[in-house]
Amino acid sequence: MPKASIKLIFGNALRALREDRGYSQEELAERAGLHRNYVGSVERGERNVALENIVKLAKALSVRTKDLFESLP
Amino acid sequence: MPKASIKLIFGNALRALREDRGYSQEELAERAGLHRNYVGSVERGERNVALENIVKLAKALSVRTKDLFESLP
Repeated sequence: MPKASIKLIFGNALRALREDRGYSQEELAERAGLHRNYVGSVERGERNVALENIVKLAKALSVRTKDLFESLP
Repeated sequence: MPKASIKLIFGNALRALREDRGYSQEELAERAGLHRNYVGSVERGERNVALENIVKLAKALSVRTKDLFESLP
């Protein structure tokens, strides 16, 4: 699997969960203590997101961290 | 949860899965295409590991990526 696609699969999973919660990117960013531009770039598969931000995003979505990885191998 | 502990919980989970497989840190590093010192520092909770390396480590352990997050909230 090429590097870009791991980031994009993660970004798509994040977007799907965010939309499921009815949050805008801005709302999610605020809940997670991250910048809205950062959240947008994660969803577009542009970021190699690290552990601490992954956990912040999961918490902001009220899901377990592992739930963000359901679409990845 | 303080930042250090997320990294350490992840590191402990990685170590447990690695030992379960009977791999040394060096064997795991080689299978994952990473440096053995890097793997050691991840296990000690010193690294904010990013998405692409998380997926490499899971693949090298023959587990799903989400299995590395079982101990995290």
